[in-house]
Amino acid sequence: MAVRALVFDVFGTLVDWRSGVAEAFRASGVSGDPAELADTWRARYWPILAEVNAGARPWGNFDEHHLVTLDDLLGERGVELPVEQRRRLVGAWHRLDPWPDVRTGLETLRHQRLTAALSNGHTALLVDLARHGDLRFDCVLSAELAHAYKPAPEIYQTAARLLGVEPTELMLVAAHPWDLKGARGAGLQTAFLDRPLEYGSGSPAREDPDADESVGHLHELAERLAS
Amino acid sequence: MAVRALVFDVFGTLVDWRSGVAEAFRASGVSGDPAELADTWRARYWPILAEVNAGARPWGNFDEHHLVTLDDLLGERGVELPVEQRRRLVGAWHRLDPWPDVRTGLETLRHQRLTAALSNGHTALLVDLARHGDLRFDCVLSAELAHAYKPAPEIYQTAARLLGVEPTELMLVAAHPWDLKGARGAGLQTAFLDRPLEYGSGSPAREDPDADESVGHLHELAERLAS
Repeated sequence: MAVRALVFDVFGTLVDWRSGVAEAFRASGVSGDPAELADTWRARYWPILAEVNAGARPWGNFDEHHLVTLDDLLGERGVELPVEQRRRLVGAWHRLDPWPDVRTGLETLRHQRLTAALSNGHTALLVDLARHGDLRFDCVLSAELAHAYKPAPEIYQTAARLLGVEPTELMLVAAHPWDLKGARGAGLQTAFLDRPLEYGSGSPAREDPDADESVGHLHELAERLAS
Repeated sequence: MAVRALVFDVFGTLVDWRSGVAEAFRASGVSGDPAELADTWRARYWPILAEVNAGARPWGNFDEHHLVTLDDLLGERGVELPVEQRRRLVGAWHRLDPWPDVRTGLETLRHQRLTAALSNGHTALLVDLARHGDLRFDCVLSAELAHAYKPAPEIYQTAARLLGVEPTELMLVAAHPWDLKGARGAGLQTAFLDRPLEYGSGSPAREDPDADESVGHLHELAERLAS
């Protein structure tokens, strides 16, 4: 089945959230290992999203979720931080650098196919990240538009509908097997993009044997799709 | 009040729908004045959108509306056209050229502000037009996301919410006073962009004395907003 459009996961797949958030912790003066703080903060977003998808928590955007989880994290460690500093940490998620292949890789892929971001992050956050990294998409799609977070099938199906393609003609590109699995469940094709440094040099190895493509960077994906 | 983001109407404001659609009629072999056919087809979209906004007609995308109105138009004139030809005419709305200032003007404005398309057209149609004209937006927003057509206030308010700005911080750029009026009703700032050739050399003169800015092209708007 031909791939008519590509949607890209953003956090971890296109942008290096850990380095950017660790740097913000470093600048904040919060004591502790900045990378560990970043990992712990990131890990707290999962239960929140699951609660929203289960209807046990009202819809919220990532800025709201990040502020809640940051307050929890700091509270547990007895860290007091002025609101201005907490807002700056939440804002760090809007200014994350892309992995080195992303800007030019997206440009190449955009000449082959329709391209769109497809993230659990809210639209305004994704727009800021795209501007920060000079990333060009044809379209920015957020979980916000389906009011459900990945891996709920609605978000992948909403993306296909908005882009005017069948789910089977749409390919999700992501570094996370759980996301790719969700996309396949909704009928999409999938490409696993390895990001071995997402969690730093000690990142657990990942693979997805069920993916239609497995690549190490976006240019490799462009070559595969062109052939 | 500062303008933090700009949203742009598309049909007539950024792209020259009349020339493109007239050219498609010319190629179709349908007898009659191609420009008159284009104008008549375009005029038929108003009642459809009003019926949808009033709840008297189910939601549809522009391809669906265009096919219905084309069939009506051809039927009234006793023209029989194979489905393939009718589809080609509907597809012409996906390949309209931008006015000459648009590609570079959007690029300049994007360096000053957040920019997004905001059209009654559906997302896939807007994406095709942006690709066809090499138009770069930070984000493509469609009436589809609010399930209401302009000038209903929801669509302008949805745009502000998705872009993460207050309605008062958002400016609509459009060639049509009815659209600008709708935006003001939703709290937006407005810029009237004159497109004296939208309906060819005989276009009625337009102005909008209530607009915050009135300009003749996008570069002029960039100068105004920079000063």
